[in-house]
Amino acid sequence: MASSAAPDARILQSLRDIANRLRILSIRATCASNSGHPTSCCSAAEIMSVLFFHVMKYKVNEPRDPNNDRFVLSKGHAAPILYAAWVEAGYVKESELMKLRKMGCPLEGHPTPKLAFVDVATGSLGQGLGAACGMAYTGKYFDKASYRVYCLIGDGESSEGSIWEAMAFASFYKLDNLVAIFDVNRLGQSEPAPLQHDMATYQKRCEAFGWNTHVVDGHDVEALCKALGQDGQVRNRPTAIVARTFKGRGIKGVENEENWHGKPIPKDRVEGIIKEINSLIQSSETLKPSPPSESAPVIDITAIRMTSPSTYKLGDKIATRKAYGLALAKLGHANQRVIALDGDTKNSTFSDLFRKEHPERFIECFIAEQNMISVAIGCATRDRTVAFASTFAAFFSRGYDQIRMAAISESNANFSGSHCGISIGEDGPSQMALEDIAMFRAIPTCTVFYPSDAVSTERAVELAANTKGIGFIRTSRPETAVIYSNDEKFEIGQAKVVLQKETDSILVIGAGITLHEALAAANQLSGEGVHIRVLDPFTIKPLDAATIITNARAVGGRIITVEDHYHEGGLGEAVASAVSLEPGILVHRLAVSGVAWSAKPTELLDAFGISAGSIVAAVHSALAN
Amino acid sequence: MASSAAPDARILQSLRDIANRLRILSIRATCASNSGHPTSCCSAAEIMSVLFFHVMKYKVNEPRDPNNDRFVLSKGHAAPILYAAWVEAGYVKESELMKLRKMGCPLEGHPTPKLAFVDVATGSLGQGLGAACGMAYTGKYFDKASYRVYCLIGDGESSEGSIWEAMAFASFYKLDNLVAIFDVNRLGQSEPAPLQHDMATYQKRCEAFGWNTHVVDGHDVEALCKALGQDGQVRNRPTAIVARTFKGRGIKGVENEENWHGKPIPKDRVEGIIKEINSLIQSSETLKPSPPSESAPVIDITAIRMTSPSTYKLGDKIATRKAYGLALAKLGHANQRVIALDGDTKNSTFSDLFRKEHPERFIECFIAEQNMISVAIGCATRDRTVAFASTFAAFFSRGYDQIRMAAISESNANFSGSHCGISIGEDGPSQMALEDIAMFRAIPTCTVFYPSDAVSTERAVELAANTKGIGFIRTSRPETAVIYSNDEKFEIGQAKVVLQKETDSILVIGAGITLHEALAAANQLSGEGVHIRVLDPFTIKPLDAATIITNARAVGGRIITVEDHYHEGGLGEAVASAVSLEPGILVHRLAVSGVAWSAKPTELLDAFGISAGSIVAAVHSALAN
Repeated sequence: MASSAAPDARILQSLRDIANRLRILSIRATCASNSGHPTSCCSAAEIMSVLFFHVMKYKVNEPRDPNNDRFVLSKGHAAPILYAAWVEAGYVKESELMKLRKMGCPLEGHPTPKLAFVDVATGSLGQGLGAACGMAYTGKYFDKASYRVYCLIGDGESSEGSIWEAMAFASFYKLDNLVAIFDVNRLGQSEPAPLQHDMATYQKRCEAFGWNTHVVDGHDVEALCKALGQDGQVRNRPTAIVARTFKGRGIKGVENEENWHGKPIPKDRVEGIIKEINSLIQSSETLKPSPPSESAPVIDITAIRMTSPSTYKLGDKIATRKAYGLALAKLGHANQRVIALDGDTKNSTFSDLFRKEHPERFIECFIAEQNMISVAIGCATRDRTVAFASTFAAFFSRGYDQIRMAAISESNANFSGSHCGISIGEDGPSQMALEDIAMFRAIPTCTVFYPSDAVSTERAVELAANTKGIGFIRTSRPETAVIYSNDEKFEIGQAKVVLQKETDSILVIGAGITLHEALAAANQLSGEGVHIRVLDPFTIKPLDAATIITNARAVGGRIITVEDHYHEGGLGEAVASAVSLEPGILVHRLAVSGVAWSAKPTELLDAFGISAGSIVAAVHSALAN
Repeated sequence: MASSAAPDARILQSLRDIANRLRILSIRATCASNSGHPTSCCSAAEIMSVLFFHVMKYKVNEPRDPNNDRFVLSKGHAAPILYAAWVEAGYVKESELMKLRKMGCPLEGHPTPKLAFVDVATGSLGQGLGAACGMAYTGKYFDKASYRVYCLIGDGESSEGSIWEAMAFASFYKLDNLVAIFDVNRLGQSEPAPLQHDMATYQKRCEAFGWNTHVVDGHDVEALCKALGQDGQVRNRPTAIVARTFKGRGIKGVENEENWHGKPIPKDRVEGIIKEINSLIQSSETLKPSPPSESAPVIDITAIRMTSPSTYKLGDKIATRKAYGLALAKLGHANQRVIALDGDTKNSTFSDLFRKEHPERFIECFIAEQNMISVAIGCATRDRTVAFASTFAAFFSRGYDQIRMAAISESNANFSGSHCGISIGEDGPSQMALEDIAMFRAIPTCTVFYPSDAVSTERAVELAANTKGIGFIRTSRPETAVIYSNDEKFEIGQAKVVLQKETDSILVIGAGITLHEALAAANQLSGEGVHIRVLDPFTIKPLDAATIITNARAVGGRIITVEDHYHEGGLGEAVASAVSLEPGILVHRLAVSGVAWSAKPTELLDAFGISAGSIVAAVHSALAN
């Protein structure tokens, strides 16, 4: 952050000049693309100027250096002014900015990490502050470094609950290296934001959530310098700058007017407007950002391997959720950068086992799943940590938008969802994840692990730690038998045939609890002289289509899938799709239909037709046709 | 609400006695089920007693009467004490409560509307207050009735951002018929809640969000009566009662202790504990709730039909998102109970067209999608409204947990998501819904409409209004041609073959923008003498498998699906699954792979292989094999 000495008049004027140049670039770029949000840029021009050319410490030519201060543009639609700041700093060419939003240009409609100066993609509103919290937590507690984190938030998006989850998190964890700047430009997309310019209410809310809060005129560079400087900060509390601004500031006839959201300035007015803004600029001289101190440790999160083999016994009963906790605790010994997060379910997901062994690397996020996901994503930026966040699989649906954005953010964060499916029993449908495979399969960068025993769960955790993209590990509540030897090798996209005979007449594919039901069915059927081949996919995405097709052909083309998940988007549809161009392979899908209810797990497996008995019946029926 | 006169000592003692009886029933029921959350019940015993037997006005034997005060148990895991209150009131039999969580018993682990006294399912935390806001908004502005809405919230769940979205909404809309009671019992599931007993901070937060706020001892029935009585209320502001309580209150050795969340009292201790609580009860006499005034109007939301036929011209270009807005505005004339909600995107989703014609029935929810969804669900309870909530389809991912719970809530709310897919172009991937079909298909009660022109969009809106369960209408940004006559009949689960010849050699299934690409491809191919049959599914769920199979067989068994959605969980997988037991039908799926970027819509359709040109190439390739 800037020193407490107020900048001199020359610097202040330079900051004003820079702000106006950023305005002009934003207006020009959105005119060139004929789309975008120039008015949302103009309200933030002085804030961006002061942050990038007076407050923040960073290496212009190494935007992703771990020592740099971080900046998160939560109001992602103001992307052009972020790009303009990097033009002003000298990292991006102005000619490139004029290709804004065009095919092949990484300067997209909203920021993504294709740009080295962007850590997390934004554009779905309200998500930036949670990610910034993860960066600030990492800076303060893991890196113990001096870099600071700045997050620019729109007033419209502060209606998002995720902002208030992050506000509570930041003060609880005393993130005094975090600064949130609210750009209160009064106007939303389709009408004024609910609080308009009621600065007192913004201040009350920020203070009630534990933040050191300053209300400032967001177009006054001196006031911004003061609030963002050393004197504006307080030990052990995050700082909020609530900046009163005007949307479209500086654009005559547009400033503070409605119906200008997301609209470029009309071609016939643009040159006049730019001329007017240009007339305010006194000098073309720019300011050089200060470099950061080199305080972030050099770390390595590649090739993380368990320090000892698994030690399970075949046939022992252990829930995969517990095996997850044990594996994660063990992985924590392999690399000091493995961290765990949970949303007050750690004694159910067993992430508590990690916390017991590595308390300093566990982040309790309380009952705020959206923020937990964003914090994990923030912690994992710039490869500073290997993050594993856990809660009931059902509750990842709370943060599906954050997970969707995580793929665009090129995040490597990992998520583990416990208590999947109806097999949780008595707690009832609100706690049962029956759509989580559908959710995570539809995340383009996601690997979906669905381990069926403790050994494969341990391998899933190890593989997830070393795999790019989002990792999702689905675990179950009931205890199930260990079926793999400790030395069994697992790879992503590689299925295991766990039971086979030459005389097999059908291929049954199960995962988690249903793999064990399939094995029980096989046992029962074998007494009748009917043999089924049983396959464990291990990862549902990518799915091992080749092994499935080979084995389906070997048994004559019949597949039965059985899953503790709805029919839609789960294992059965993944298999049906994988064989959709294979003539002669038929897929019969056993899965959950309709809303479930409270009962014993075994009763529900029967009632929803995914128990061993249901598999036996389906095999009989398939063979009879 | 109760009158301002303080209740006499006899009534106060009865309320204490009732509280203790509710405790005993909660303890006994969770012992009988050997699972559940007795300690979370015990902290709320006095609150429940005062609400149900002093404050709330309702008909005990008609729990769903529209005139009744509403009660939402946001902390759904305290279900046993809700059930116990209805035992005490005489509506539920005690013997039934002892079947808690057992197969066939509607008294499940968490409340669902299988019970007439439950309006919305809870159990995923932080969702009750948003639904309560919808009920209160409906009571104040649509029903203009005197019923009031009470919502009991846990302290743990007040970390959920959705609570703060609802807090902001309630004060913005001056919902003075809404009371939120925070049961601040200090302890979460796995550790203390972040604020523990810091009542001052709770008060500051509630006040900053615009609520009339009282901090009370939550075990003091007199204090609760006072705060919940007339004197405790303020005109035009919602009221928050922040109640300091103890988890497990009344259970010796358990009260205020950690590690008792979700655990029944051990069998060997239960009788001693119950004896002790029982000893506090002075009389078995109970109190009778007062009936409500009959102020809610009689309404009818069945058989809602457009008052005039569609008036589109074949070939005219109109975006389906705009057709949605036009249709909804029109439907608003057919029934006065049709309402619309939006999240500050009304000028993009075109729900603004509804607002212009029916301003009093439009609810601007600002940028808080979770709360918008919950408010819609709340508005639709007890069949008081037909609710349509809209935003960009991508942003429904923000409230996927709320939508998941809506199915358990048996809600009939409708959602319309605009700007689906890569065809939005320049705004880039954060704004593109590419997983929304996967999401909504995995909602068990959901009908997924994907209309391809203005006429079918109008029919989708009309059908959604009259269909039980969740409705999702996916609309597109680009303008597309009207392809159906105004008198074309549409039914849920009924596909349209839009182009066919006897000599067709392949079946192409598209929807929305890709149906038009398929028609363009057909046109191009027909110049080469190749004929393709083109099918519009209209609803993706339910999917018209019969028509698809018949037409696939008629063309020799080849299907190409083409969709502006990821491969996973979308149209292609739905089709692959529908034909998975049909020998000789092969499905080739064209869909989006990987994270998209900013560019022109047409460039993206080509780059991701779902344009007319891509379909032509796929047809050539399929016919060559």
